[in-house]
This record gives sequence, C-alpha cells and structure tokens, in this order.
Amino acid sequence: MKKISTESYKGVRDFYPEDMSVQNYIFEKMHETAKSFGYSEYSASILEPTELYHAKSGEELVSEQTYSFKDRGDRDVTLRPEMTPTLARMVAAKKRELSFPLRWYSIPNIFRYEQPQRGRLREHWQLNVDIFGVENNESEKEMISVAHRLLKNFGAKNDDFIIKINDRRIMNALYQKFELTAEDAEHVSKALDKKSKNPFEVFKSALSGIFKKDAHLEEFLEAIESNQKLIKTLGEDNSLVKNLMELIDGLASVGVTNVLFDPTIVRGLDYYTGIVFEIFDTDPKNKRALFGGGRYDDLLSIFGNEKVSAVGFGAGDVTIKDFLETHALLPVYTSTTNLYLGVIDDAFSTAQTFANSLRTIGVNVAVDYTGKSVGDQIKKATNDHIPFIAIIGKKEVESKKLKIKNLATREEVEFGFEGIEKIAKIIL
Amino acid sequence: MKKISTESYKGVRDFYPEDMSVQNYIFEKMHETAKSFGYSEYSASILEPTELYHAKSGEELVSEQTYSFKDRGDRDVTLRPEMTPTLARMVAAKKRELSFPLRWYSIPNIFRYEQPQRGRLREHWQLNVDIFGVENNESEKEMISVAHRLLKNFGAKNDDFIIKINDRRIMNALYQKFELTAEDAEHVSKALDKKSKNPFEVFKSALSGIFKKDAHLEEFLEAIESNQKLIKTLGEDNSLVKNLMELIDGLASVGVTNVLFDPTIVRGLDYYTGIVFEIFDTDPKNKRALFGGGRYDDLLSIFGNEKVSAVGFGAGDVTIKDFLETHALLPVYTSTTNLYLGVIDDAFSTAQTFANSLRTIGVNVAVDYTGKSVGDQIKKATNDHIPFIAIIGKKEVESKKLKIKNLATREEVEFGFEGIEKIAKIIL
Repeated sequence: MKKISTESYKGVRDFYPEDMSVQNYIFEKMHETAKSFGYSEYSASILEPTELYHAKSGEELVSEQTYSFKDRGDRDVTLRPEMTPTLARMVAAKKRELSFPLRWYSIPNIFRYEQPQRGRLREHWQLNVDIFGVENNESEKEMISVAHRLLKNFGAKNDDFIIKINDRRIMNALYQKFELTAEDAEHVSKALDKKSKNPFEVFKSALSGIFKKDAHLEEFLEAIESNQKLIKTLGEDNSLVKNLMELIDGLASVGVTNVLFDPTIVRGLDYYTGIVFEIFDTDPKNKRALFGGGRYDDLLSIFGNEKVSAVGFGAGDVTIKDFLETHALLPVYTSTTNLYLGVIDDAFSTAQTFANSLRTIGVNVAVDYTGKSVGDQIKKATNDHIPFIAIIGKKEVESKKLKIKNLATREEVEFGFEGIEKIAKIIL
Repeated sequence: MKKISTESYKGVRDFYPEDMSVQNYIFEKMHETAKSFGYSEYSASILEPTELYHAKSGEELVSEQTYSFKDRGDRDVTLRPEMTPTLARMVAAKKRELSFPLRWYSIPNIFRYEQPQRGRLREHWQLNVDIFGVENNESEKEMISVAHRLLKNFGAKNDDFIIKINDRRIMNALYQKFELTAEDAEHVSKALDKKSKNPFEVFKSALSGIFKKDAHLEEFLEAIESNQKLIKTLGEDNSLVKNLMELIDGLASVGVTNVLFDPTIVRGLDYYTGIVFEIFDTDPKNKRALFGGGRYDDLLSIFGNEKVSAVGFGAGDVTIKDFLETHALLPVYTSTTNLYLGVIDDAFSTAQTFANSLRTIGVNVAVDYTGKSVGDQIKKATNDHIPFIAIIGKKEVESKKLKIKNLATREEVEFGFEGIEKIAKIIL
C-alpha cells in the first residue's frame, strides 16, 4: 500500500491542543469584546455561490485569489474569501423581518489562494463586527472603539498599536481636484492600498502617466504625505475633513487617543463608501494591518435592495497572534483537564464512579486505563500540563480516601471519596 | 446591474442570531462534556489533500460524496467529509513527540455532496471524541459513557434514546462460519449498514446469491434478528460475544443502562476493527443515528506507522438539533446583550462613557444611536429579546442617575451613574 503523507495542505494549519488553546484564547477575547458592545453572533457556510463575489469584492480577489470550483451538480461554488458579502446577503434576505439597527458579529474562517508568508495564510479566521442602519458617525466611533477595546482586552498598551483613518470621499475630492477619470482614480486608489508594502519608487511609477501635469503629481504626493498640505489643497473649510477631525476628537473623548489621519489608507475592497481605517502594530516586525474596516452604505444594492447604512471591520487571527507574540501577551498553556486520576490494581470501576461524581460539579477529570506504574502516570499528567493528580488503587478503594497532589507546588491533601465539594474548591 | 440572489448555497445553512444561539447551546454542551472526561480540543483546516481519503474512507463516500477539486496550483484538494482521517494524520505526524494515551476532541464542520433531507445536510458540524493508545475495553466503556453523558447533559432521559452495540469481529466470525469470501462479506456488511433505512425486502434481495445454500441465508437472517440464535450459531462460549456482554455489564455499573446488542450495527466506514456502536432517538420521527463510533486500531498504518489502538465517535449537530426539538429540550432564546441603553437629546457621549464602565465589569451593553423616540427604542430592545433597558437623556445627564427597567416584569429601579456594581448584580 502506498504510504500517505502526514503533511497538511499547503498554507493551512493543524491545531494540536497547545495551538488550539492559543486559538481559543484569541476567539474568547473576540467573543467577549463584541458581546460587551451588544453585538449578536451569526454565522454561515463557507460555501457560497460564486456570483456573490462578482459585483463588489474587487477584481484581483475574485480572478486570482478565490478557491472556486464546480460542484457535482455543475453549480459554481466559492469558498468565502471574506465574510462581508455573506453578511450582506443574509441581511438582504430578511430585510423586512429584521429589527434595525443590527449589531452582528462572527468569527468565520476565510480562504485566499496566495503565497503563504508572515501574517498571511491560505485559511485564516477573522473577527467580523458590523452595524447596519446607523447613518451618523457614532457607528464609526463605536466600531473603532470595539477594535481598540479588543486590543486593550488582550493587554495591549496604547503605544503598541496605531489606528490609521481616512475617508474615501476625501480621496475622491482629491481625484476630482486633479481631474482624474473614474478609471484612473481607481488605479491610484489600488496603488495607495499597496503603497506601504512596496518601496516608494514602485508606488511612484504606478502613478506615472495618470496625472495631466507633473506639477499635479507632485502636489498629490505632497498632499498624501502631509495632512497640512492635504487640507490646504482641499480648502480649509472642507466639510469631509472637518467630519473626520470631529470623529478623531470624539474617539479621544472616550479614551481612544492613538488615532492618526492617514490619506494613504484606502482599503483594497471595492465596496467602501466613506470612512475607512486600519490598525497597525507599532513594532516594525509586523507590517500587515491587524484590523481593517470602514463604511459601506451601498452593498445591499447588489441584491436589488435599497441602500442600508453599514459600518464594519475585520481582524484576523494570524496577524493578531503575531502581535500577541511580539508583545509577549499570550498566556502560558495549561490543560483544560483539572485532575488526572491515576489507577493501579485494576480499580477502574471505583475510579470511574468517583470521576463521574466530580464531573457533575464541574471538575474535568481524566482517568488512566494503561495500568502503568504510578511514576509513569504522574509523568503523563505532567507532560499534559494537568495541574492536579490523584491515584486510586486497592488501598484507596478500601479506605475510601485519596490524596490530591498539586503537581506544581507538590502539596498533597487527603480527602474522603464523598468530599467532592471540598476537592472542587481546591482544584477549580 | 444583474440582481444577485440572496439564497445560500444548496443544502447549507445561514445562522441568524437566534439560530446561532441554538448552535452555540449545542456546541457548549459538547465542549463541556468532552472536557469533563479530560479530552483536549484540537482542530485543522477543512482543506485536505484528496489522497488522505483514498485508503480507508469507503468507496461510496470518496467517489460520490466528496467535494473535491484542483486548486490553482493543480493540487488535488478535498473538503473533509469526516474528521477521523485528519485526526489520524495529525497523530501520525507527531507520534514520537505526543504523550499517549491521547484524549482529543474537536467540533469540525464536514462536507458531503448528498441530497439534503431530514437529519442530513451538505455541511454539518460533528463532535469527534477519540482516545488513542488504550487496548482494553475501558476505552469503549468510556467512549459510550461520554456519548451517554452528552445526551444526559442536554436533559434527555434514558428512555429517550437507545445505544446499539456490536463487534465487527463477531460479524467476521459469522461470515467465516458461512464461508463467505472477503468480497461477499464486505457486500453483506454494506447491506447491513443500510438495512434500517430501507424495507426488509430491499435488504433481503441485496443478499441473494451470496450464500452457498438457502439454509445458510435463513440461518444468517435469524442470527441477526435474534441474539439467542446468534449466540447459538457462534457457540455459547464464543470469546467475542463474552467480551461484548462484559462491556454491556460494565456500562450498566456506571449507570449506562439503555444499551442493546444489535448485530445489524456495522458502520459504513471501512476502518473499524472491533466494537462499533450507534445511538438512536427512540422517537420514530428521527430515524438517523445520533452518534456513531467504534474501535479502529489500524488507521495509522496508511501513513506507514505501526498500529495504535484507537476508539472514537462522532455526533452531528443536525440530528442532535432534531432530537432536542422532538423532546422539547431546547432553551428559550434570549440575547447575549444584557442591557439596551436608549439615548435621547443626543446624549451619546455620556451614554458611551457609562456603557464602557459597565463593560469593564462584564455587562454587555448596546447603545442606541438612532435618535428615535423612547417608545421605538424600547420596542427595539423587546424585539431583540434583551432583558433590561435604560434611557439616558438631558435629565439623566444632569442628575447623574438613571432607571433600569426589567422588560419582562416591568420593574424599574433607579441607580446613580457610579452604581455600576449594584447594576451588575441585578442584571447579570
């Protein structure tokens, strides 16, 4: 028989219990933070009709990065490369029954066919937080607050990360000022989105031939490098700039002070219509955005629905894990099992009954069935990072007593079999 | 622009917040039960190299029911149709580093291309619980205990479900007795696996021509219908039958009494090598097995590894949900949001600061940004099944006090803004 490889598919991860524990830590903080702001969890299948991504997800993503195939019934199926189109589909499908504003969140896994590299894999999980049905800036303020709060809940300090914010409408005003066609404006926007990932010369050469005069190009480059220049170019009393400054002030008033207006933040996806933002690690080791989001008021129109205001963001597990490792914010691993119950003298039945009574009051107990030596059974518990051990053998069956040992402090306390409440107090 | 459909892909589900709440309830009980027996969570990607399923998953599954395709790099990829091969791959990959016995669980989503019907969809989630490295029957006893405990933790009574158990080696002994070839034995085994899903005549005609004499066929049919006949056919002191009876007695000794020896239980997958079991709803409305599992001591050999004893089971969310609905065991929906904070007079900033202080002590608070009437904001909280509401406006900003209302009892209590600990006590 041909030997099968034990390697996983390229660019995806196996989660052994210690890896899973890190994932669960990240997911728990995501759940906790989103719920604390009143968001309800939703979910959907990773399989979507391919047409869902044609309208608004951006050409590069759909034609080069999706996992798309035909099913056995000849339907075009795609593994979701992002969650927002699915969310929009679900909202559009029940628009009449749902009670707006909606506050929804999800932690889906999403798929992109890319070269695996630091901060980017072919499958990753992404917290998605979205609010539907609020037109004013309070929703942007809240969305950025949720993102900020999540990082604070991980133990991050304000100077560990920076929130960069922009408004696509400001960029549109700039493109209009330089009389760019819609097509050229989109080209400049895509170049801006990639600016931070490449040397400046790559960015500059992507802009060559776009502007009517060299002076325009120079003025544009100055405007995106200096907020003062940008404001001067658009006019001191430009209402979009004022609106953005008000948002930054409003965030400061609720304690979110590490915010920067950055005109090079535009986001790669086509559907954004207003404020956009990304959050970056201040440690240069992690270059990719930790979070990205913004306003997308027009996405439901692809389903023939009228407009619904929407603001949301996504935050991926791969970049967050890199961030937490860089800033030493990951907790030490311990097993979810509280007690390892070693067994000698074939006392399985007594051990199982005792374990069952502990389980009814919330203690997680593993029973050993190997019949190995006490030393081996202690070694097993230690290897697995289980904090407590007890041994049941002939002696314990007769005396109806056993000793619970803390494997870190080596402290040992004796209990009667009926003393499960007292045992739980020590162990949990 | 062409209007895009809001329907999901065929045979999969969208989980709106109320559906997600049911899923989360089912998942939480699965996590809680598996952990209580000392199992650690693991996970992996849904994408697997297609060759992983060729050796042992069964011909029908691989050739007719998988989602398989070529990726953009021409690799053969399959969406996992079951978790066990992935688990075996992970164990084989780190066999030297891992500390046996392993107790691992996971709740993966799995994919099968089938006609959607009651209890069966194209994507479902499945609790997988497995123990590696225990040769004796204690692992079967524990595995069935975990399955039994999960249903009890959902609130099920012993007569709501029945555990049917068999041993593939007993069936092999029977096939040998009637001198069936390996190929014919496999054919009979597949027919047995489908027996309960079809009329008896379909089963009987599947066996025609297999047995050398009509008398053999009659004897075989009697043996699988009556345990007494089966025991007589194999001999009173058959060690496999004795072993199975001991297991059933052992289960009774730890309170698992709804167990039945049933020679028609064989399991569809090729890799089982010993004891197999399935759990069924006693309500005839739900015909599909709720749980299925058994011993598979030989699966690691497909990776060129030596044998490792393994016992495990799977339990799907779709059939469990049907079971819980049939026996009225699902909880009533309430929002994960504890308090809806209505806002009038544009008092957003005060409301946000107050909400933030409640969030730091674990209260989940949604703030209203619509500026709608108090009545509309109360209606929104009621629609969303949020249990408490408070309103902040000019009056509350000035007095620094607000009233918290229980929407079910209509009781109202006034608190100062600083009284967050007292508020948490009432709300949580």
